[in-house]
This record gives sequence, structure tokens and C-alpha cells, in this order.
Amino acid sequence: MRPSGRAPDEMRAIAIETGFTKHAEGSVLIGFGDTKVLVTASIEERVPPFLRGKGSGWVTGEYSMLPRATHTRGSREAAKGKQSGRTQEIQRLIGRSLRSVTNLEKLGERQITLDCDVIQADGGTRTASISGAWVALRLAVNKLLAEGAIKEDPIEAKIAAISCGIFEGTPVLDLDYAEDSNADADANFVLIEGGRIAEVQATAEGATYDEEGLLRLLRLAQIGCNQIFTAQEAATQ
Amino acid sequence: MRPSGRAPDEMRAIAIETGFTKHAEGSVLIGFGDTKVLVTASIEERVPPFLRGKGSGWVTGEYSMLPRATHTRGSREAAKGKQSGRTQEIQRLIGRSLRSVTNLEKLGERQITLDCDVIQADGGTRTASISGAWVALRLAVNKLLAEGAIKEDPIEAKIAAISCGIFEGTPVLDLDYAEDSNADADANFVLIEGGRIAEVQATAEGATYDEEGLLRLLRLAQIGCNQIFTAQEAATQ
Amino acid sequence: MRPSGRAPDEMRAIAIETGFTKHAEGSVLIGFGDTKVLVTASIEERVPPFLRGKGSGWVTGEYSMLPRATHTRGSREAAKGKQSGRTQEIQRLIGRSLRSVTNLEKLGERQITLDCDVIQADGGTRTASISGAWVALRLAVNKLLAEGAIKEDPIEAKIAAISCGIFEGTPVLDLDYAEDSNADADANFVLIEGGRIAEVQATAEGATYDEEGLLRLLRLAQIGCNQIFTAQEAATQ
Amino acid sequence: MRPSGRAPDEMRAIAIETGFTKHAEGSVLIGFGDTKVLVTASIEERVPPFLRGKGSGWVTGEYSMLPRATHTRGSREAAKGKQSGRTQEIQRLIGRSLRSVTNLEKLGERQITLDCDVIQADGGTRTASISGAWVALRLAVNKLLAEGAIKEDPIEAKIAAISCGIFEGTPVLDLDYAEDSNADADANFVLIEGGRIAEVQATAEGATYDEEGLLRLLRLAQIGCNQIFTAQEAATQ
Amino acid sequence: MRPSGRAPDEMRAIAIETGFTKHAEGSVLIGFGDTKVLVTASIEERVPPFLRGKGSGWVTGEYSMLPRATHTRGSREAAKGKQSGRTQEIQRLIGRSLRSVTNLEKLGERQITLDCDVIQADGGTRTASISGAWVALRLAVNKLLAEGAIKEDPIEAKIAAISCGIFEGTPVLDLDYAEDSNADADANFVLIEGGRIAEVQATAEGATYDEEGLLRLLRLAQIGCNQIFTAQEAATQ
Amino acid sequence: MRPSGRAPDEMRAIAIETGFTKHAEGSVLIGFGDTKVLVTASIEERVPPFLRGKGSGWVTGEYSMLPRATHTRGSREAAKGKQSGRTQEIQRLIGRSLRSVTNLEKLGERQITLDCDVIQADGGTRTASISGAWVALRLAVNKLLAEGAIKEDPIEAKIAAISCGIFEGTPVLDLDYAEDSNADADANFVLIEGGRIAEVQATAEGATYDEEGLLRLLRLAQIGCNQIFTAQEAATQ
Repeated sequence: MRPSGRAPDEMRAIAIETGFTKHAEGSVLIGFGDTKVLVTASIEERVPPFLRGKGSGWVTGEYSMLPRATHTRGSREAAKGKQSGRTQEIQRLIGRSLRSVTNLEKLGERQITLDCDVIQADGGTRTASISGAWVALRLAVNKLLAEGAIKEDPIEAKIAAISCGIFEGTPVLDLDYAEDSNADADANFVLIEGGRIAEVQATAEGATYDEEGLLRLLRLAQIGCNQIFTAQEAATQ
Repeated sequence: MRPSGRAPDEMRAIAIETGFTKHAEGSVLIGFGDTKVLVTASIEERVPPFLRGKGSGWVTGEYSMLPRATHTRGSREAAKGKQSGRTQEIQRLIGRSLRSVTNLEKLGERQITLDCDVIQADGGTRTASISGAWVALRLAVNKLLAEGAIKEDPIEAKIAAISCGIFEGTPVLDLDYAEDSNADADANFVLIEGGRIAEVQATAEGATYDEEGLLRLLRLAQIGCNQIFTAQEAATQ
Repeated sequence: MRPSGRAPDEMRAIAIETGFTKHAEGSVLIGFGDTKVLVTASIEERVPPFLRGKGSGWVTGEYSMLPRATHTRGSREAAKGKQSGRTQEIQRLIGRSLRSVTNLEKLGERQITLDCDVIQADGGTRTASISGAWVALRLAVNKLLAEGAIKEDPIEAKIAAISCGIFEGTPVLDLDYAEDSNADADANFVLIEGGRIAEVQATAEGATYDEEGLLRLLRLAQIGCNQIFTAQEAATQ
Repeated sequence: MRPSGRAPDEMRAIAIETGFTKHAEGSVLIGFGDTKVLVTASIEERVPPFLRGKGSGWVTGEYSMLPRATHTRGSREAAKGKQSGRTQEIQRLIGRSLRSVTNLEKLGERQITLDCDVIQADGGTRTASISGAWVALRLAVNKLLAEGAIKEDPIEAKIAAISCGIFEGTPVLDLDYAEDSNADADANFVLIEGGRIAEVQATAEGATYDEEGLLRLLRLAQIGCNQIFTAQEAATQ
Repeated sequence: MRPSGRAPDEMRAIAIETGFTKHAEGSVLIGFGDTKVLVTASIEERVPPFLRGKGSGWVTGEYSMLPRATHTRGSREAAKGKQSGRTQEIQRLIGRSLRSVTNLEKLGERQITLDCDVIQADGGTRTASISGAWVALRLAVNKLLAEGAIKEDPIEAKIAAISCGIFEGTPVLDLDYAEDSNADADANFVLIEGGRIAEVQATAEGATYDEEGLLRLLRLAQIGCNQIFTAQEAATQ
Repeated sequence: MRPSGRAPDEMRAIAIETGFTKHAEGSVLIGFGDTKVLVTASIEERVPPFLRGKGSGWVTGEYSMLPRATHTRGSREAAKGKQSGRTQEIQRLIGRSLRSVTNLEKLGERQITLDCDVIQADGGTRTASISGAWVALRLAVNKLLAEGAIKEDPIEAKIAAISCGIFEGTPVLDLDYAEDSNADADANFVLIEGGRIAEVQATAEGATYDEEGLLRLLRLAQIGCNQIFTAQEAATQ
């Protein structure tokens, strides 16, 4: 029995509110239940040094938790003077995921930064960030297309992410904090429309699992991501 | 004529939404027009080293802008590895202001941290932060009183802050970004209920002003803070 | 055809030299072909603050590349003043992997640090590090058992890691640098004796793959890890 | 009664010794009683990036305390690896103040840095720094004029700073350390010749004050700054 | 011919002014010609962690150049966020030198920090620092003896330092900046009263030298240090 | 009697293994007894900013200890975020020493970095580093000569380093850790073929010594360096 009473393959409510802030080219408040992340897409007419003059754009991600997004207050990384290993790991994952569905040549020599700031955390902040980042990227790219700054759509497919895990022996979809902190295994899947895999990060904590277990988690993730794709479609119509 | 069409002594709409996030002991989304700041109050049962064992509590503030709160994206301070001088100056001001209306002995040996994270900026982020921080502090202290953790209310009065300036020769109240970036003089006032002054930070930019000019700005600030006190009262009833 | 001429399921030569340095409680030079990593295990009679007084030990990993382990010289992280996101990600993976086969209560209140320093890099440095770290940990724990400092063996199973990927359309085992920099998909598997999975980190680069593709990579990894388990056994007899 | 026996509107002795060191384009040892600050003005033929090619110069300030300028030794900021919020706040104030009386276009594309190093502290180090910085700036600009590097004098007026406060209920001028650490309110005024205000930074500590109190402090500051203007004039004749 | 016209074995004027600042337990402004260093000795009733409870004291040194002590302005180390290798090397030398003539047991569990801040530089700042540090240490220890805080004098001998070098083929004593920047070889000697050596740091720059050359420099250093011992004696009578 | 049973003027076994790693232009594992340092020489076709366009090359050194090179584990400098003063001092010494035997104009506008990573420490790591760095530099320069990238050999002579000290009253050559930690005086000599001195760094620890003592240590160093020159010659034939 899940703490929330959800069925094993039941996601939390997905809420996507576009236009949450006004300055960014794309702005989204995404909620997976009580997890809420503000994602903005910022377009800058420059690329990192290693891409200058090569006719290719760049998509990158940054991630942060507000200090009191969590049950107990965490120190501000700016005050500590460095980003934790966890933060950097998530940032790299966000950028890699969004780039895997973007044609960087079609984007032209510009950079889009996806800032994911967790307003409230209840498990799954990285998967909500990636799923929301796609919406913010879509909105920003729509703006470039509408202005005629780019001719062809550089976004090749939708991408979404979800966590799955083995909780009290049962594979379950979309772990919340109560489950996440007690799961026997925990996996984040980043999936692309059409059944393709962009990333798998699966970790056994305490217990371990086998090939069969990995497949079960992957299939739950496909159920969840299909629901996110639908919500992304609705939010960007 | 002000860019917004406001009268010289007219504030922007004040919006205070309590309970915006669920984990913090106090949580407020405060808006001064398009400026929006999320303020949380976090209670921790410990004090800084210099206060240990002295029977006194502590109130402190932290401040940050989300990278795309502004017209163009700013670098994340956590990524740069240090907080700017401006950030530190504002943090010190927030803490000092809230401590000036708190009886730290009555608070007991605990610390309340007021995290002010600017979601969207349009001028006046530090004054909205201080004004919202009082509400978050009030909510957190109410919780301590309700739980019986403290006996007497340590909050002695309301406190609020507002910016004033001289724009195209006219003293005006509550500068927005369009005014702030072109003002001849810019002053932040932190005022306490009953006509008392906690802080004045007045700077001439380009032009200068005299005693008479300072007084006019102070009187505008009193008009503005009285409206904020009313909104704070309404939000915490 | 692989650049090295290896068959798709053929690993590079595994070389494990124990006792490479004399001060550490466990010291191993592990080679996967031209990739060479010096791993030392250091026992310290203290645990991190969050474990003090709880009767549990800790196993952690650190990772670094010598500046000229690679084709072109990389800057020294100590000179830059911080560890990269990649370094931190690998360190966290090493620690998590080794802890997944260690009973921390049986270890007692002491910490074992596994330092993995890459002497020469040719792809697969993190998987060689994890595989070598198990040997260094085994040697250090043997020393504790021999001295009577602990009664029961805290190591529950062997653990090993290997990378697999899709190179020119073919799933291949144990990517070297020439393959790694051109692979369509790249996955690191951390496996435990007996067919169990500790970690999967699979990334599509450029291309994507599906459930079938993931399974093929996993099966290659099982072939590779079984050979590493045999080499670990031989090195610690 | 003031600890020093001074009258409420009585400043400490002002001592300005020019040419204290030989390399700088302007060099001043300024004393407000026992507070002694060495200020040097350094001319560099370059401007910060945001001003390049715009035909405008820049004036900036830096501030530091020698470790044993104070009663008890303070840690060296260079050893701690960062400047405190207080230091940055003072540095920003010094630069802003001096720029408010300098025509940056007339200065041409060059930067003048005012380094204020506190040799001995007894209250009022920031106000002595600003007052001495004007003298150092004057000497450096005189040198540029004498060499024909600039044609018109970019300095438009004298500027000086002084602290005032409410000590045991009485408004007093030029707080020394004994007063500063016990004052009910503390204000720093930066004033320009002719009765104009450049900056006001007034803080209530413990107590608060009202409009009347603020005016009294401002009037004391005018008395003090007039004496500093006279000393600045004498030192630069 | 030396740029200054001095004879090869002629030192610059040595000036030692005690009591230059008032808070420190020992305070000295030492000049070797135009090189001027302010040295303060600060007594703290605590020792570094590695000495706690061992009945031994500690003597340490810190060193810094004011930004415009030199011909062209140098960046402030506090602003850059770290001390240079040169600064750390000099600090370690100052501490080691002073400890070599101090009986740390007789000092008791307290630390004396010798802060050497270069006000004006013209070559030989580290040797002036060490020579002045002995005077500041002597004054601080005299205070401890006068107060009865310690019974026996922990200072066992005088110590002084001087630079020598080979300038245009001739060994010369006490290099100034004009010589230092063109010397063929440069050596710093730290000598103890009675002909003993505490430290030699000799470097060939461009040229090299042999055993004979090293001895000549050492003999010049003995001449110079004898004069410094006399000046130290006079200053502390 | 020395702990190792060696005669006072007896060095430990010198072992030089070239080609230890494959990517670097020069790669050497040098051993002085149980002290083992991996030195690589990396050629980069760029020079530091201060040399750009001046027709001169640069030779520099970096130094690090692996965390468990020593008896007890030391913290990784990359994790602490800065290099210690000791590390920087040694790095500066390595670079200065190698540059003293290199004609930088003949090297052309390129930089050679000598990375010295201590694999195992038993005293004398800096002297082994310098002695090994010459071999790595020689190999890298041979490569440039063979490729025709430079015409004339920029290396003017061999250079080697050795430590000497006074142990239980006797001057001894090539201190190992057991001696180094108990020596009365400790000196590092960097000598050039033909009896010339590049650097002397001699420190009295506890005891002091005189002119006679310094000469005795220098003569031992000459004996040691002559043996190192022979080993360098053999390794680079």
C-alpha cells in the first residue's frame, strides 16, 4: 500500500501553468502533486566558446532548490560558495536530455538556458524539471519561429522524465518523498515520444534488482511519460 | 508624468498571499505590482555561535533573485561561487530591519531565517522583501505561540519598507523599474508603525538633493508604509 | 568493425596488481587495456558527523585524473579550486556502489576511503575505478579481520562495473576511448555477483534506443562483469 | 556626557598628511582622532569592460582594515578567501560617493582607484576613508592636469562624510568607538559642498527615531563636513 | 656601480619606530631605506588545534602588500579570493624564523601573530618584515613579562634577515628594487646573533654561482645583520 | 647511525623508468628509494599572457601528492578547493629550477608543463620531482628536435636536486622520512652540472648551524647530484 493511497501505476496530478512570470521567453510552473518547479527558458544571442563560429546553437540547464522548498531548511548554495555534486549532476542531466531532442544547427548560433528552480519539493524534482523544461523550450522556440528568427523547427520530439522505484516489494510509478526516502530501488527515466529511451539512471538502495525488475520499472515509466506528453501537448496548444 | 501613469504619491497594488508553500513555518508571496517575492520563515532550534547559551534568539535574512526574474538573464550566484556585494547589502538590511521590531530574549534560543527569493522583478525588490518578511515572521511566531513554545509575543510592532525617488524633478512613491533606472535620487525607507524610522538609505544618482528633498521623500514613504501596514494586518488576521 | 579489432563481446585485458604502493591498507593498480587506475583503500577510525555514535561505518570514494592521463593535458582541479561536476558524479557513484555490497554495521565506526587516481586514460576510467576499488576494499577489510578489529566480514558480495555502448549500430562491450567518443549510446553498469544490478546509467548520445537495446547492453555487461569477478577473485586469493 | 568629554557638536581633530607614500599618484594619511586611514589614488589607463570605447572614465574604491587596526585582531580577508558583506558595502559607498562629484567624461578613458586601508580604527573608518579619498583624488587629478593629460578639471565639488548618532539620548557628531558601540542610532552622511546630500545611511539600533531626530543628525553632519571641507582645502593648496 | 651609489657592503638606512599604532601588544614601523613595513604583534590566549593541551605556545606570521605599495597597483588578494604562492611562502618564512629563536614552552599556551603589512616597497620587504617582527615580538613578550603572565623570557636571541645578490658581477648587500630586478643571483639570509644561520634561500636568476659565491653572499649578510641587531637593541631599550 | 643503516654520504637507490605512461611527450617514474614520483612533460603550443608575441617559450611545474602517498591519508587539495602554501612553494621551485637550464628563446613560443605527482612518499619528494622533471623535459625536447619543430637544443645543462641535513649531529645525504622528521637542519640543493648552484633552501629546525655546517651540506649535495646526473644520462641515452 502506497502512503498516498495511489495505485502502483498511478501518477500524481500533473499541473502545467504557462506564463507564470513575464520576462522569460518561456515560463512554466509545473507540478507533480506537491512538487512544484518554476522553469524559465532564456534565449541569448551567443554560444559557449567551444561552439563559436560553428553554426550550431546550445541548450543547457540549471537547477536549484529554494532553501525552504524542503521539510527542513537547506543552506543556500550561493552562500556556501559552491554547487553540490547533486545539483551539478541534475543540471547536466537536464541539459543532455533537452539537447537529445533539439537539432542544434536549426537553432542557429544562440543559447537557450532552462532554469529550473524548485519552489516546493515532494520527490521527483528532477523529473518535473525536465518535463517542464520541454514546455518552456517549446514556448521559447515558438517565439523564435513567430519572429522569423529561425525557419525550421529545431525541436524534433517531446521528452519527459519520471521516477519509478520498488517500494515495499512492489514496483511503483512517480515516487513522492515518503516513498523515495524508503524505496528499495530508485530509477529515473527520460523518455522520448515513440518508445525511445534518452536516459536511464537506476540505483539500488539497500536491496538490488535484476533484469526483470529493470524492465518492470521501464514499463511503468512509459505509462507515466505518455501522460506527461499529453499534458505537455495541452499546455502548448 | 510617471511611465505607469500613477500619481506621485500612488503606490502600486499590494498583494499578499499567505501559505504559498507548505513546508515553511511562514510562507508569503508578496507583490508590489509586477515585483513578486516569495518569503519563507524557517524556525531552527539553534542560534549562531556568538549567542549560544545567552538566552537570546536571532532573526536573519537571506535574499536572492531567480536568474530570469529580470529583463535579461543574470548569472546564478551559486554558479559564480559567491554572493554579490548588492546581495549581501540587502541581506544585512533585511535582518537588521526585522530584528529592530523583535524582542530577541522573548524569542528564546532559536533562529528564524527569512528567505526572500525574487520570482519576478520590476523595481523595489528589497522593500517588498522586508514588507513580506514581516508577514512570514508573524506567521511563524504565531505558530510558536499556538504551540506554547513561547509565552509572550516577541514582535513589538509592524515594520515595512518602500522606495521613493526624484523622477524628472518630482518626488514619487514606490519606484518601478522604468523609474528606478532613470531616477535622479533613490531612497529606501524602513519604517515602523507609529511614525518611527528604522533605516534610511538615500543615494543621489547624477543629481543631488538637500534637506528639504530628503523630508519630502520621507513623507511619501510614510504614506506608502501606512498602506503596507494595513495590508500586513489584513493578511495576518 | 571495432577500432581495436575486438569482437563485440570481447573485453580488453584485465590486469590487477596488488600492493602497488606500501602505505595504504589496500593498494591496487588496475588496468582495463590502456586504462590504468591506482586505487588505495585508507582506513580511518572516525566516521562522518551524521553517523557519529550510531554504531555504523562508512565507505566513500574519491576520484581524480592526473593532468596528463589523457591525450591533451587537462587543468589540475586543485589549481582551478574546485572539482568538476563530472568528478563529483563519479565519486558519488563509486561510494554508492561499494556501500551497496558492504554491511556498514559489521564494519564498525570507521571509514574506508577508496581513492581512485587515473594514471592513464583510454575510456572506462569510472568502471575500472569501481572494479579496482572492490579489490582495495577487500584487502583493507582482510587486514581488519586478521588484526581482530572486526569479527564478521562486512563484505557481502563482489561488485564490478563495465561500460557498453552502441558503436556503428552494433552493441559492444567495454568501450575504449576511440569508441566512447563516437558511440551512439553509452551505458555504465554496476553489477553484483549473482546477476543483480546495483546501478545503470545509460545515455543516448545523438541516437536513442529502446527497451530491446537496453537489454542487449545489460547482457553484454553481465558477460564483462563475470570476467572481472574472476580477476578480482584471483587477485585476492 | 560623551566618553571623550567632547561637546555634542564637536568633532575630533582632523589631520591630513599628503605624500605619505611615494609611488601613488595621490597619497594621504587622514586622521579623525585615533582613526587613521591611508588612502592612495592610482591612475590606470584602462576602464572596466562595460565602459570600453564609450569615452568615459571610472572612479572606484577599495577598503580594508589591517588585522590589528582594532582592539582585538581580526582575520585577514585574503586568508579567509573573501571580503565580508561589510567591506563590500563600504567599498560601494566610497566609489559611489566620489563618482557623484566627478565628471567621468572629462576624466577620459582611465580609471582612478581609491584604496583605503585602515591603519588604526577608533570609529568612523568609512567616513574618514571617503573624506581622505577626495584629497587623494584631487592630488591625482592635479597631476593629470599638470601633465596635460586632461584639459578640464573633472572634479566638480568637494565631498566629505561624517557619522552622527544618538548617544544616551543626545544627538552627537563624529562617533568614536566607545560611542559607536553603544549608540541608539547611527547615521553616516556623505555631503557635498553647498548643502547638498550625496548619501544618507541611517540605522536605528535598539531604539528608533523620527523625522525630527533625522533632521538633527543631518544638521550636525553639516557642521562636521564644513570643517572637513576646510581641512581638505588646506591640504590641497 | 650600484644605482644608489652605495658601496657593495653598505646597507640602506635602518629606521625602527615603535608604538606606531596603539591597539597591538607590539607595533613597529620598520624602514630599510624606502621600504617600509608596519609590523604588529598580537597576543591571543589560544593555540592552533594541533597544540591544544600540550603546554606549548605558537608564533606565526602573516604578510601582505598594500595595493599601491609598489610602482604599479597590484590587485588586492582579498578581492581575488586567495593569497598568492609568493605571499604564502613569505608568511611561512616569517613564522619559521621567529619560532627558531623562541622557546614555545616558556611562552605558555598562547599564540603571537606577527602581521607584516608593506606600506611602501623598494626591495627587501620580506627581510624588513622579519627584522621588524623580532622587535614587535620583543615588545609583546616584554608586556607579558611585566604583567607576570610568564615568568621566564621565551626569546633566546635576536634574529634578523637581509638580502644579498650579485649585481653586475659584484656581490652586494641589501638589494633595492632597481638592483633586485636586475640581479644575477638573489639570496635571503636569516641570521641569529652569534654567527648562526636560521635560513638560507638563494636563487640563481639567469646566471648561476658556485660555493665561493655563496660564501661571499653569506659574509655580506653577516655584516648587514650585525647592523640590524644593533638597531633592534636600540629600539627595544 | 642512520635508521636505514646507510653511510652519511650514501644515497638511496635511484631508479628512473621512462615511458611509464603513453600520452605525454615525456613520461618518467623516478624513485629515490621508496619515494616514487610520476613526472610527465606536456608540450602546448601557447604561452602565458605575459609572454605572448615575445618569441620566448615557458617551462613551468605543478606538484601534487596522491592522498595516500603518505603514512596517513591527506585530504585531496581539489576537494579542499585550494593548494597549500607548501604545494605552491614546491611548484615555484620546480619551474624556476628547470627554467635556469633552459634557453627559452630557443624553445620558441610554446609551454612545457612538468607535472610531478607523488605516488609514494618517503622523504625527498621535491628533489626527486626536480631530478625526474629534467628527464621528462629532455624527452619532450628530443621529440621537438626530432620533428624539426625546433632547430637548436634549448637545454643547456643537466640539473638535479637532493636534500641533506644534520641528523643526530652528523651531516647526511638524501634524508628519508625517518630522518627528515627528526633532523636538526634540513637543506635542499638544486645543482647544475659543473659545480654550479641554482638554488639553496636551508632551514634550521630546532638547532642552528654556521658557515662551516652549510659548506658540509653543500659538499654532500654535490656527491649526490653527481650520481643523479649519471642516472639521468643513462635514462636518456
